[in-house]
Amino acid sequence: MMTKAYGAHAGDRPLEPMEITRRTPGKHDVQIDIAYCGVCHSDIHQARSEWAGTLYPCVPGHEIVGRVAAVGSGVTGFQEGDLVGVGCIVDSCQHCGECDDGLENYCDHMIGTYNFPTPDAPGHTLGGYSQHIVVHQRYVLRIRHPEPQLAAVAPLLCAGITTYSPLRHWQVGRGDKVGVVGIGGLGHMGIKLAHAMGAHVVAFTTSESKRDAALALGADEVVVSRDAEEMAAQSKRLDFILNTVAAPHDLDAFMALLKRDGTMALVGAPASAHPSPQVMNLIAKRRGIAGSMIGGIPETQEMLDFCAEHGIVADIEMIRAEDINGAYERMLAGDVKYRFVIDNASLAL
Amino acid sequence: MMTKAYGAHAGDRPLEPMEITRRTPGKHDVQIDIAYCGVCHSDIHQARSEWAGTLYPCVPGHEIVGRVAAVGSGVTGFQEGDLVGVGCIVDSCQHCGECDDGLENYCDHMIGTYNFPTPDAPGHTLGGYSQHIVVHQRYVLRIRHPEPQLAAVAPLLCAGITTYSPLRHWQVGRGDKVGVVGIGGLGHMGIKLAHAMGAHVVAFTTSESKRDAALALGADEVVVSRDAEEMAAQSKRLDFILNTVAAPHDLDAFMALLKRDGTMALVGAPASAHPSPQVMNLIAKRRGIAGSMIGGIPETQEMLDFCAEHGIVADIEMIRAEDINGAYERMLAGDVKYRFVIDNASLAL
Repeated sequence: MMTKAYGAHAGDRPLEPMEITRRTPGKHDVQIDIAYCGVCHSDIHQARSEWAGTLYPCVPGHEIVGRVAAVGSGVTGFQEGDLVGVGCIVDSCQHCGECDDGLENYCDHMIGTYNFPTPDAPGHTLGGYSQHIVVHQRYVLRIRHPEPQLAAVAPLLCAGITTYSPLRHWQVGRGDKVGVVGIGGLGHMGIKLAHAMGAHVVAFTTSESKRDAALALGADEVVVSRDAEEMAAQSKRLDFILNTVAAPHDLDAFMALLKRDGTMALVGAPASAHPSPQVMNLIAKRRGIAGSMIGGIPETQEMLDFCAEHGIVADIEMIRAEDINGAYERMLAGDVKYRFVIDNASLAL
Repeated sequence: MMTKAYGAHAGDRPLEPMEITRRTPGKHDVQIDIAYCGVCHSDIHQARSEWAGTLYPCVPGHEIVGRVAAVGSGVTGFQEGDLVGVGCIVDSCQHCGECDDGLENYCDHMIGTYNFPTPDAPGHTLGGYSQHIVVHQRYVLRIRHPEPQLAAVAPLLCAGITTYSPLRHWQVGRGDKVGVVGIGGLGHMGIKLAHAMGAHVVAFTTSESKRDAALALGADEVVVSRDAEEMAAQSKRLDFILNTVAAPHDLDAFMALLKRDGTMALVGAPASAHPSPQVMNLIAKRRGIAGSMIGGIPETQEMLDFCAEHGIVADIEMIRAEDINGAYERMLAGDVKYRFVIDNASLAL
């Protein structure tokens, strides 16, 4: 099946319209008409070959929502017309310890939604900036939000699960004081989710101008991280920090805010290293720095259900596919509240 | 009470004999005749003012064992003649959350055995390179090893608890594969303890020459960390790593050996920073880098009892007090298996 898409032919070229093919659904496949696709920072890195190994043509997009158009004969959980989502993962080995634990995101043979090897043409996966996608049922998520929220659900498939998974893994809940560093696509979800989990949320931003917005998102307190006095007031007061900032920055300033046994989980991978964290900051209170990468399929479903139950969606700005290059520039300038979402119907024109 | 000691009058001067005073035991105090004192790397840093803020005269030593000489009227757990130990902590606030949890080592007002403020002369604490010490009973440990082992018990009070505490905190036990990085004063205890806890122990050393010694200490495997092939064979195979190396080194090489959700605990604080660890190594398998600092008083007692039960002591080389400066040089050259212990009787002469 031919499908219209938007993608890059090279790292130094803008995204442009293209036609790609999707496989005929196999026994366990779900064919999806994509309604909306969120725009993640990773899309920019990959399209522009800022990480090693981008395969071209590159069609980004791993925050996919839409409606089931067809299912294979072995598909049990979905039928035509269902509202569904696809996130960052479209395949994995399905038999290792990680897959058995429902943590396909940590499978050594995880297949990402774009730029990973596949037997399908052209030999690597192509993402959600496209009209259709065909995905094994294991990696398809059910969406229980009301349909009018569908576009704003799309970013949950990456920004949502990337922040939900560490908050759950480190057992954030009522009585906890949790820091969320960075108020962007990931951070704004982190604030909403930690708040919904019952935590007291302290949002950290470099920008005084984001104070009111962070409170509106659900933060109980906002700290401008450049203000030494505001930072000092949080010293040793946080149980957990979710750090969503991918730009290299001083981790020590945040580590010092953790109580004994507190962990700061990093979910952004900087292109160049952070300044090396001080070991004494770790030793003095048995603190930890950890990483977390998206989430497994069962917990992605759990996250979507949690969000549906709590009325949580992303704050989005809708764009047409042909606006994508300008949207990338605005993202790089930090000029989006908080996630662009492509209206994939615009691809048909 | 006057007592003979060995200490430094300045950072650029060798240690030399001196006389210091100890307070008359108060109601809750235990007065101890020191039999032996282990020599820790921290002693060198402090005596030479390699860390900020050494107060002179500086009498190091926080691996203290000896016999109770007198007790205050309010002392309930000890009596004259008991074999006892004192480690890195001689006081703390006794009423914060950390103290309530028996983790006095993480109390913000912990008083270390040397170089911390005290109302006693000369205004800062003086350590175990001395004939006697007077310590509040809360910080005195009972020694259940046979008396002939007493000298080799001394290093348990710092090297022992510093490695025992993280092994327990991260729940190392049977079925776990545990790495111990560095085979020195701390590392050799880490190998013995992890082995006694039932773990499969992989010792890492930069030196081929330590292979047999590590096996003799209880390691199940030894990896020369400069050998890329040996390192690759351990990739993603360790549940936990205890890293005892205080010199700056590449942490990434070890992080890559951890399974999903594995932690590497650092117990050495380098004078200059480690190369900054790669965030992708953390994110890819939800790994963590943490720190751990000595241990609390109840767990120090638990460690001593565990060691007595399992027949564990340190491997030591006994020295006289006047040999201390030469011993420091040998420690800096890595020439000790694995801990020097001062025979404090030599101070009397």
